Amino acid sequence: MHKIHKNIIAISGSLRAQSFNGSLLKAVKTLAPESLTIEIVDISNIPLYNQDLEKDFPANFPKAVQDLKDKIMASDGVIFATPEYNRSVPGVLKNVIDWASRPYGKNAFAGKPVLVLGVTVGQIGTAVAQYHLKQILLCLDMHVIGQPEFYLGGATSKFDAEGNLTDQSTKNHIVEALEVLERHTSH
Amino acid sequence: MHKIHKNIIAISGSLRAQSFNGSLLKAVKTLAPESLTIEIVDISNIPLYNQDLEKDFPANFPKAVQDLKDKIMASDGVIFATPEYNRSVPGVLKNVIDWASRPYGKNAFAGKPVLVLGVTVGQIGTAVAQYHLKQILLCLDMHVIGQPEFYLGGATSKFDAEGNLTDQSTKNHIVEALEVLERHTSH
Amino acid sequence: MHKIHKNIIAISGSLRAQSFNGSLLKAVKTLAPESLTIEIVDISNIPLYNQDLEKDFPANFPKAVQDLKDKIMASDGVIFATPEYNRSVPGVLKNVIDWASRPYGKNAFAGKPVLVLGVTVGQIGTAVAQYHLKQILLCLDMHVIGQPEFYLGGATSKFDAEGNLTDQSTKNHIVEALEVLERHTSH
Amino acid sequence: MHKIHKNIIAISGSLRAQSFNGSLLKAVKTLAPESLTIEIVDISNIPLYNQDLEKDFPANFPKAVQDLKDKIMASDGVIFATPEYNRSVPGVLKNVIDWASRPYGKNAFAGKPVLVLGVTVGQIGTAVAQYHLKQILLCLDMHVIGQPEFYLGGATSKFDAEGNLTDQSTKNHIVEALEVLERHTSH
Repeated sequence: MHKIHKNIIAISGSLRAQSFNGSLLKAVKTLAPESLTIEIVDISNIPLYNQDLEKDFPANFPKAVQDLKDKIMASDGVIFATPEYNRSVPGVLKNVIDWASRPYGKNAFAGKPVLVLGVTVGQIGTAVAQYHLKQILLCLDMHVIGQPEFYLGGATSKFDAEGNLTDQSTKNHIVEALEVLERHTSH
Repeated sequence: MHKIHKNIIAISGSLRAQSFNGSLLKAVKTLAPESLTIEIVDISNIPLYNQDLEKDFPANFPKAVQDLKDKIMASDGVIFATPEYNRSVPGVLKNVIDWASRPYGKNAFAGKPVLVLGVTVGQIGTAVAQYHLKQILLCLDMHVIGQPEFYLGGATSKFDAEGNLTDQSTKNHIVEALEVLERHTSH
Repeated sequence: MHKIHKNIIAISGSLRAQSFNGSLLKAVKTLAPESLTIEIVDISNIPLYNQDLEKDFPANFPKAVQDLKDKIMASDGVIFATPEYNRSVPGVLKNVIDWASRPYGKNAFAGKPVLVLGVTVGQIGTAVAQYHLKQILLCLDMHVIGQPEFYLGGATSKFDAEGNLTDQSTKNHIVEALEVLERHTSH
Repeated sequence: MHKIHKNIIAISGSLRAQSFNGSLLKAVKTLAPESLTIEIVDISNIPLYNQDLEKDFPANFPKAVQDLKDKIMASDGVIFATPEYNRSVPGVLKNVIDWASRPYGKNAFAGKPVLVLGVTVGQIGTAVAQYHLKQILLCLDMHVIGQPEFYLGGATSKFDAEGNLTDQSTKNHIVEALEVLERHTSH
């Protein structure tokens, strides 16, 4: 019998080395079912977006951006884990999305299912930022998963000092969310 | 008799050399009343935000960011001119805001009045992006000017080939918006 | 050979008799492919939401609300045509959504595909309201169609005096949007 | 010496008799400084908005709406306490706002300072709904207070069985928020 594997690209919106959202994605990777392969991609080498670099495409298009776009286009779905900066998406994460949707007509995200997660030290759990992000992803023609929502607050009590997720209820919630994502990759 | 001058910092959300939002700010500077001095600041040298650079503050804090923050803190108000990328604020602009609000407790924007403008080639005139931006600026404790709204669509017919604003109705709208901003700087 | 028909419930966010959004839904009904049956439902008899009416459910639950919920639950998809009031969804429309999502655990919208349209006299074409609405519908676990977006401005030149849509480009856009909705009802 | 009193209109977005947001406003009234008089107004008699009732204004304009508008126009500021329904403002509350901003040119809210509060049983504390509401209020040309934000989660442990606020930390937060509102009424 043939088992179909799906490839998922996972992106954290924080560049901080010990970021909770990075740790969350590591937990997601560990908890993924056999049918899903999660690749966490680094975005620290993506430059600031400047439309002038689209001139004579692809001559001046940054190689790091094209590599990221190729990964996303070859994938079966995307996961974002986002902090909340000033009640919205980090500029660093939006910058990556701005690049990967360009140039016009070459949006790498179109048609793909997407799961949005977020963890924070406070209580609101990145909910406001996630709604900005989901709105952006709808515009990019992604299939945005509405439920379950995933707002993880109180981060400091959910991970150990090495950044390993230790909270069982959160683990269960991740497994549940990945099941929904997996179902949507089959469409 | 004594005339009080107010200093306004103006930031465009586009790095493109011939950006319509950059041209809009040039028109704003030209049309400003004598009582307002508009300084357009360049954000192309602001790096990607990384919280790790706040460690041992201010030892590792980027000089370009601190310079920008000093200008904002010394100002009487702020103007943003923002394109709309994927129905939200450009990552590049949000990145600048993320920096200027940090580190915790040193938000450069707090208490200042802010005017949000935007111009685009299409018809919606950056309205959706502006509402994300206004939400972010409220969180930063700015006095966000709600009216007049300023959504300039159809950019290609409003500026000449050198980027000079030629549309009289838009000029009038800018003058009206600056009057409201000026009034709020007096509080 | 057997042709599968899909039933779509369409709701306008305006109670005004000659509302452009009501006229838009009539055009949608006329332009629908043979495979889609569009039922436009009236919401003028839906009372103001009050959680106290959920007590001893379904004893005090308004019959008009339950009838509407039954129609939605029996449908294969939903269309909303919304005006923009104060840069958001009309209270009247949100009130209907609040009812139809209740009581807890009996959300009538869950899992259904949804298309959001809007028409206005101005130029922004209800874009800001639609993004609030799409966010709300994501929370309700609907499959929100992100593209094509449908922002119809300049209403007075698109319909005749009897409220018939006369603009061919808008007709084409409706046909395109309905094709996407139909595809999503098959999942 | 002359003491200036300011009149504040307070509106809860929930019609439920034992609503936490209603209880929150009662606590706000009790904790208000001597200089602020808080009047909590009932919105249960406000009908569904229908633009047709603006025809031949004011002939068909609902008296309950005009009475509410008169109170708001005579006030020095407004407080909203809003639940979060489906990650947005209750339709019931938005409906009141839609009325009070109409007919065109007779927006009762223009120029007034506004404080947005919210309490919920869950943890997010109505933050997403509040950001929709603040966006709406900006469009209505209100002076929206950005800080302090007021997201009260865990309602069941903050009030006693009679709906009296018992949590001291929340009381302090209310006093702080009212001080900011009072400062803005002086402009």
